[in-house]
Amino acid sequence: MLARLGIARPSYVAVQRFLHAAIERNAAFDKVSEKDVAFFEQVLGSSGVISDPDALVPFNRDWQKKYVGNAKVALRPRTTQQVSELLRYCSSRRLAVVPQGGNTGLVGGSVPVFDEVVVSTAAMNRILHFDEVSGTLIAQSGAVLQALDEYAGQRGFMMPLDLGAKGSCHIGGNVSTNAGGLRLVRYGSLHGSVLGLEGSGGDGRVLDLLRTLRKDNTGFDLKQLFIGAEGTLGIITAVAIQCAPRPASVQLALLACPSFQAVTATLRAARRVLGEVLSAVEFLDQACSHLATRHLEGVRNPLVQQLQPLEGPQGGGEGGAGATHGSADAQSAPFYMLVETHGSDVDHDQQKMERFLESVMSEGHVTDGTLATSEAQAGAIWRLREGISEALVRRGAVYKYDVSLPTAVMYDLVEVMRSRLAAGGYGSDAGVLVVGYGHIGDGNLHLNISAPRYDDALLSLIEPFVYEYVSRHNGSISAEHGIGLMKAQCLSYSKGAVAVELMRRIKEVVDPVGIMNPYKVLPPR
Amino acid sequence: MLARLGIARPSYVAVQRFLHAAIERNAAFDKVSEKDVAFFEQVLGSSGVISDPDALVPFNRDWQKKYVGNAKVALRPRTTQQVSELLRYCSSRRLAVVPQGGNTGLVGGSVPVFDEVVVSTAAMNRILHFDEVSGTLIAQSGAVLQALDEYAGQRGFMMPLDLGAKGSCHIGGNVSTNAGGLRLVRYGSLHGSVLGLEGSGGDGRVLDLLRTLRKDNTGFDLKQLFIGAEGTLGIITAVAIQCAPRPASVQLALLACPSFQAVTATLRAARRVLGEVLSAVEFLDQACSHLATRHLEGVRNPLVQQLQPLEGPQGGGEGGAGATHGSADAQSAPFYMLVETHGSDVDHDQQKMERFLESVMSEGHVTDGTLATSEAQAGAIWRLREGISEALVRRGAVYKYDVSLPTAVMYDLVEVMRSRLAAGGYGSDAGVLVVGYGHIGDGNLHLNISAPRYDDALLSLIEPFVYEYVSRHNGSISAEHGIGLMKAQCLSYSKGAVAVELMRRIKEVVDPVGIMNPYKVLPPR
Repeated sequence: MLARLGIARPSYVAVQRFLHAAIERNAAFDKVSEKDVAFFEQVLGSSGVISDPDALVPFNRDWQKKYVGNAKVALRPRTTQQVSELLRYCSSRRLAVVPQGGNTGLVGGSVPVFDEVVVSTAAMNRILHFDEVSGTLIAQSGAVLQALDEYAGQRGFMMPLDLGAKGSCHIGGNVSTNAGGLRLVRYGSLHGSVLGLEGSGGDGRVLDLLRTLRKDNTGFDLKQLFIGAEGTLGIITAVAIQCAPRPASVQLALLACPSFQAVTATLRAARRVLGEVLSAVEFLDQACSHLATRHLEGVRNPLVQQLQPLEGPQGGGEGGAGATHGSADAQSAPFYMLVETHGSDVDHDQQKMERFLESVMSEGHVTDGTLATSEAQAGAIWRLREGISEALVRRGAVYKYDVSLPTAVMYDLVEVMRSRLAAGGYGSDAGVLVVGYGHIGDGNLHLNISAPRYDDALLSLIEPFVYEYVSRHNGSISAEHGIGLMKAQCLSYSKGAVAVELMRRIKEVVDPVGIMNPYKVLPPR
Repeated sequence: MLARLGIARPSYVAVQRFLHAAIERNAAFDKVSEKDVAFFEQVLGSSGVISDPDALVPFNRDWQKKYVGNAKVALRPRTTQQVSELLRYCSSRRLAVVPQGGNTGLVGGSVPVFDEVVVSTAAMNRILHFDEVSGTLIAQSGAVLQALDEYAGQRGFMMPLDLGAKGSCHIGGNVSTNAGGLRLVRYGSLHGSVLGLEGSGGDGRVLDLLRTLRKDNTGFDLKQLFIGAEGTLGIITAVAIQCAPRPASVQLALLACPSFQAVTATLRAARRVLGEVLSAVEFLDQACSHLATRHLEGVRNPLVQQLQPLEGPQGGGEGGAGATHGSADAQSAPFYMLVETHGSDVDHDQQKMERFLESVMSEGHVTDGTLATSEAQAGAIWRLREGISEALVRRGAVYKYDVSLPTAVMYDLVEVMRSRLAAGGYGSDAGVLVVGYGHIGDGNLHLNISAPRYDDALLSLIEPFVYEYVSRHNGSISAEHGIGLMKAQCLSYSKGAVAVELMRRIKEVVDPVGIMNPYKVLPPR
């Protein structure tokens, strides 16, 4: 029981201490002076410059409250020209800058580490162009993903990406972090769907690559460098993106699977039988289902019969998949999957889905399932999956890892970690939960370790073990969350020395003074 | 009649004179000495070093015989290590290098301009790995696209790109030039489907990014720089690519359209009705159909009744769409389209195709059509489309432009050019044909001007007019062919000064001595 273990808010101080252990403020950066603030106010007006300590709080910490910086000023430009002027000035003054979109990242990439100037894209949220024939959209980088999706939706299109944070994340942040999300399996990565972008390098030079052409082979594809650079090269000011046609028919199934092997067999069947209409394949383990239904208002798993009333938001037993304990949800399955289709013909899609369900149930890969029969039901099922991250934060401290691994062995990491931590005194009896969920269609596992509080001894059991494990299995230490501050010292587990050196040299070209998002992505020399 | 106009082989000398008008050999490059050849032989063995003048001919000129260089040596490495050694040596000796794959390019990117050392990937054609569950393929860069597609096909997959030159082009060249091709509309660009690559920078440093992960956000996505760099940064030695599942059902329709407006209406209907199974939408004008059926053995257009026997390979009237002249194919339509579907269920796909055909025929967008009922029929229809390029070369001199333009106004360029040239004395009566075809589903027009011989006065009517026109309409001066030698001086029509300067600086990082494929892509300073 969490209450018994004395769970409180995570201890920020402990986290900060660990994170900054090896990082010192780069003395080459100057500190923001009153003269600087006066310049910023001259460019942006006083409403665009935030320097009040209380007003700065949300700019200085991430939504997990895990990363806390100490910026003295946050800026809210409205135009590309203003962004360019600000960066030119900051370069000339050697003021470090952290770009911030919706601040929904998970690796500390969008908050200051020390006293960097925050440049927020929140006031840059205009939609600049939409082509109703081709579905190409141009928007300023601060436009919120969900707002763009609704705008496109009214015109028969949809954004080619979707993720849990859609209500607050900015499209510029999505592109800067190469966000993957729920439907990459169908609509591909942003390296394919971003048609153009405009941005300012760290020195204030504006790079105008804002085209809506599907094909354009004219020199190096420079926009690709900004996709996934996490603000270390400059600031993206506008994005041109290829929207997908909004599907006439959407189906969503929630399935219960008796083993992880059954999960991968179901994935293969989905690819084979659903073919071109398959739009998402997600999985979560039993513990994730418990977490989401316990900690979030109104979230339930329709495949789980609740045998006894819940004991309140923190009540009930929680354990890893396969663990046996007297939980309120004793009848729940070890794994759940969400399988979604997007298609143009309801009858065809239903036939394909029926054929798929018959196949996986007759072979025993799926033991129970439900098909959403309304948008509201589909929304409720998606909330079970999308709420996991929030539920984990509500439970207490959480160590988040986002890795790519070969699908067949993906869940081994969760089990290996669970045993490892239990052997080290951090089992479920100590309130530690090791859970796994994610985008199985793309080989992307979210490994999360929930604990009563942040704890350096626990962390030392997790890292660098998790990175070594992933590296040994030819995986990626960051499938979609990025490197940020969290993994900057671990980049070499995924990238060789030649690659890292080329990244440094390219950063010197685009951000010559090196003011952009320091301490992030690239490891210290 | 072509014979009457005295059409002969194109005059290479004239072309070369024009192309090299503004280009001088960079005196900073050294000339290949006997000592250099001895070193190459030491690395590759004597069979890997070609220096016999006759044997060098195919390395020195492109298949169009439009670009002719003067290399004294061509090298055929077999391993990444050898490529790296060769480039390190050439950098130290300041010997310029041109990488060469299948040498099927159209912009003079893969042949020497002067005496550059040719490094051919022809001996690097091994398949290194194939994952039969996920469909990820790793191959050396010299593997031929068609060979890879056949290999994948035997395992239930297909390469995510297809183009006319598939029988000779190398996968490394495809990636280096970011080849688009026939099915980009469905399977996306190589920026999305290339999962990893390995290459050597101009200084011989090996960059190992050869992963098969669908998602990997660990630092800047450096592989993207090599995709489309046309060998100006280094040499790609191996490629990891995501194959697509081979479709269970393939349908192909050849349609006749009465106007270009009908073509675009048919495209919109195909997107709407065929939705997720649409895999290719191509168009060709009447003149293209005439060219392919006249100049290529065994190619015919099943929608055209041949009213009288053909007069041999160069017989018959040829003219632009809309032009009226007493041709043997008087009943042919102004435009033809190929509409293809790839799907997982034959019945569903046939229903969708029937619905699509009913829709476009009832609205008058399509006046005639045929559905391929066998692979052989489909192959014959594709030959009509894919043979256009070869037919143009057989007819005589050809000026090729490959542009992106907004779909609705795409064909205007063909008509404007036709009028412009006719007004300048280069009408169809002078044997000049202005034709248009291409990947309409991607906004990609191939504008081709066929003439009895290369002619500077004709060229001066075409260029820079064509680039100015495209730039004014926010198009791209190279949709998929790349820049190569042909358009290096025109890059600024598509890319601004800041972008070009960043490209130069990035090249300095990856190819510090500047030996890689000089005179190409980047304009002279």
